[in-house]
Amino acid sequence: MSGHAKKMKIGVWTSGDGAHVAAWRLPGDDPHRSAKIGYWTHLAKVAEKGKLDFVFLADSNRILYHSNPSAMSKMPATRVFEPLTLLSAMAMVTEHIGLVATMTTTYNEPFHVARIFASLDHISGGRGSWNVVTSSSADEAPNFTAEKHMAHDDRYARAKEFLEIVNGLWDSWEDDAFPRDAESGVYLDYDKLHYLNWKSERFSVKGPLNSPRSPQGRPVVFQAGSSDIGREFGAETADAIFTAQETFKSAQAFYKDIKSRAVKYGRNPDDIPIFCGVGPIVGRTVEEAREKYAHLQSQMPTDVALQLLSEVLGGADLSKIPLDVPVTSLPASDAIQSRRDLLLAKAIEEKMTLVELARYAAGGRGHRQIIGTPEMIADDFQYWVENGATDGFMLAPAALPMYLEDFVEMVVPELQRRGIFRTEYEGSTFRNVLEIPRPPHPAVLKK
Amino acid sequence: MSGHAKKMKIGVWTSGDGAHVAAWRLPGDDPHRSAKIGYWTHLAKVAEKGKLDFVFLADSNRILYHSNPSAMSKMPATRVFEPLTLLSAMAMVTEHIGLVATMTTTYNEPFHVARIFASLDHISGGRGSWNVVTSSSADEAPNFTAEKHMAHDDRYARAKEFLEIVNGLWDSWEDDAFPRDAESGVYLDYDKLHYLNWKSERFSVKGPLNSPRSPQGRPVVFQAGSSDIGREFGAETADAIFTAQETFKSAQAFYKDIKSRAVKYGRNPDDIPIFCGVGPIVGRTVEEAREKYAHLQSQMPTDVALQLLSEVLGGADLSKIPLDVPVTSLPASDAIQSRRDLLLAKAIEEKMTLVELARYAAGGRGHRQIIGTPEMIADDFQYWVENGATDGFMLAPAALPMYLEDFVEMVVPELQRRGIFRTEYEGSTFRNVLEIPRPPHPAVLKK
Repeated sequence: MSGHAKKMKIGVWTSGDGAHVAAWRLPGDDPHRSAKIGYWTHLAKVAEKGKLDFVFLADSNRILYHSNPSAMSKMPATRVFEPLTLLSAMAMVTEHIGLVATMTTTYNEPFHVARIFASLDHISGGRGSWNVVTSSSADEAPNFTAEKHMAHDDRYARAKEFLEIVNGLWDSWEDDAFPRDAESGVYLDYDKLHYLNWKSERFSVKGPLNSPRSPQGRPVVFQAGSSDIGREFGAETADAIFTAQETFKSAQAFYKDIKSRAVKYGRNPDDIPIFCGVGPIVGRTVEEAREKYAHLQSQMPTDVALQLLSEVLGGADLSKIPLDVPVTSLPASDAIQSRRDLLLAKAIEEKMTLVELARYAAGGRGHRQIIGTPEMIADDFQYWVENGATDGFMLAPAALPMYLEDFVEMVVPELQRRGIFRTEYEGSTFRNVLEIPRPPHPAVLKK
Repeated sequence: MSGHAKKMKIGVWTSGDGAHVAAWRLPGDDPHRSAKIGYWTHLAKVAEKGKLDFVFLADSNRILYHSNPSAMSKMPATRVFEPLTLLSAMAMVTEHIGLVATMTTTYNEPFHVARIFASLDHISGGRGSWNVVTSSSADEAPNFTAEKHMAHDDRYARAKEFLEIVNGLWDSWEDDAFPRDAESGVYLDYDKLHYLNWKSERFSVKGPLNSPRSPQGRPVVFQAGSSDIGREFGAETADAIFTAQETFKSAQAFYKDIKSRAVKYGRNPDDIPIFCGVGPIVGRTVEEAREKYAHLQSQMPTDVALQLLSEVLGGADLSKIPLDVPVTSLPASDAIQSRRDLLLAKAIEEKMTLVELARYAAGGRGHRQIIGTPEMIADDFQYWVENGATDGFMLAPAALPMYLEDFVEMVVPELQRRGIFRTEYEGSTFRNVLEIPRPPHPAVLKK
């Protein structure tokens, strides 16, 4: 293949023991491994060895509560590490890989968020990145003296303003505001200090930020909203986009939609790479890959599978449905009708029992799965990128670190052989790696 | 000396280029050194090489603004790093040293604070520590949509409740709540999960924290309040205390006061070590030490010295006072009367001009300075500890990393020779190092 083929981008979602609910039961040297920092620095090093674009940390400010205590006791209910401290630790053992953390705009202050991501960018030499989210779970409000959960559109309006403030704070100082010239005694150039003086109904933030402009100018901003308001927000303001598209068709439609919205805002569509979530399970043969997945599925207790299915169906009571005969109907729910219809159709088509359906639904958990050889996975990735469905992928390995190691050892070399994935990093900052521009300071643009 | 002599404890305040306002002008390999992470990891490694108890980071959510732009341009106006991300990075290059960060209770949420310090404790294997403060500067409020600065007693009432909530959140899970037994499939023990359910006028925080109980049970809590309400708060709730006492007598009185207040709360006074701030400048001879300090002072521009003196005097206008004749009076100000009286007495006694007085005041900046040989500094430290003025010291080196390196190379060996400072760390957690107990989980106490 030609060296001029379009190269794809690949990040990895490092999530506890992996995306699969039973991953923690796979054998390892230490059952408490994922609660220890060495596990996470290993993940970062493996990802960097594979020349991946970034490690990504999801986040929430709550435990993963389940109404059935027996099922709950069999699942990871909580994170251990807060993302920004964890990424700072990962920064110390890596040199090139991007470091992406989720932080909510719903229960934070823009000053704190601007500051901590600027700090990560300084610590990592320009590899910091913020995944801007709103808190979708109502379970967070009670941890923050909030009377009730904020409505969807309010959260987005807040998020949009929040991001504008954070961007403004990141521009508090021009890039060359600190000559630190010992000879003349000039530490800073006072004219290159800019107060934000933000005032609105919702926020008043005077600034300036108490941190110099960071190596990337502004840390990379990721977003993942899929609603209309979320897409509009992303196309206008994000540097990169995550999305969980289960089919090629829907991914293609999403891709086209985001890129055309970006153009509407006067942006170069190449400057806003899109990443589709995918869970690859690699084997040297298809059988080996399938066996891996089957073993993982076998580790999922039945009550865990049923509990997760009930939650996917909006907390539906499944106790009246017999467990071991083919499913013919599922409880309806307004909130998740489309998901319920898809699952019911699948169950009927494949004559699944409730337990089988529950295991099937809990296995993927909304991620597109590819189970196969390195060549099959490379074919799939290549097809998606060459046919305008995505610019790259966010891996959500079902079990960590094993399935990430497999990907790096088997799939990455195949992609490199085809000339569609990097063999060396493009530069020292995450913006270099993503091949997106570094934003000039607004005051410089005016000069 | 006997090996049974009381051993002292020593931490170091790592503050940009050092505590002296002109430290950044001392020659170094890179004028931007203190804006780079390698500088800070070097400081942590040097401190650990010297077997110090901890590195300490002060904090504020504002720049260091000065009303005179010319003077301001000659001083470090801003931090670069946010303390928790910085300590996480430092944790990765050290193994034993305590990691203490300041975080305000005035403009934060207890859930976030509990979580980020728990994360630091997990990352560092039990070396995390929180210096609980209230925001004393009115300059922070405008960065947090706060209409006005909170009054002193309100800030303390909030801080006290805030700390109770944080302690409660740190106890969300019992120490052995996560068996993670792959064989049986039991990940967590549901009975060892505790909701906080805090409800008051000020806060409602349901919990639980989304992080297991950390290695130290609770990260070490430092405090530094010197008002009556601050001392009471510290004696009741702190694990360790900072104080800036300029004289032996005042230190002795403070020490006695805190320890007796602690006893009143039923605490063992040995479990609440006190650290006095001190700025040591070490030379192989007294002359060498004095020359170091004189050179540092010579790097302080006159307008910087005058600006800082004006600020110490509550923003006093000094422009009417002649610069080069002995000072005979200083503007009065209610807010800082005692400091003004001390400075005026010193100026009259030593026939200082205004410029000389300004340089003198700006050189120490409220820290007790000791300029001398390793033996002189060891004598001073030993005298303070053996005569009930303190349990240890927090070094505020005037220039970093040089004066910390000097201390570690010259003073530490002298203290070790005398048997009054450790030669090996006492254990793996910061509580081990401070020799204070690990708090048992409240539910275990009840059993």
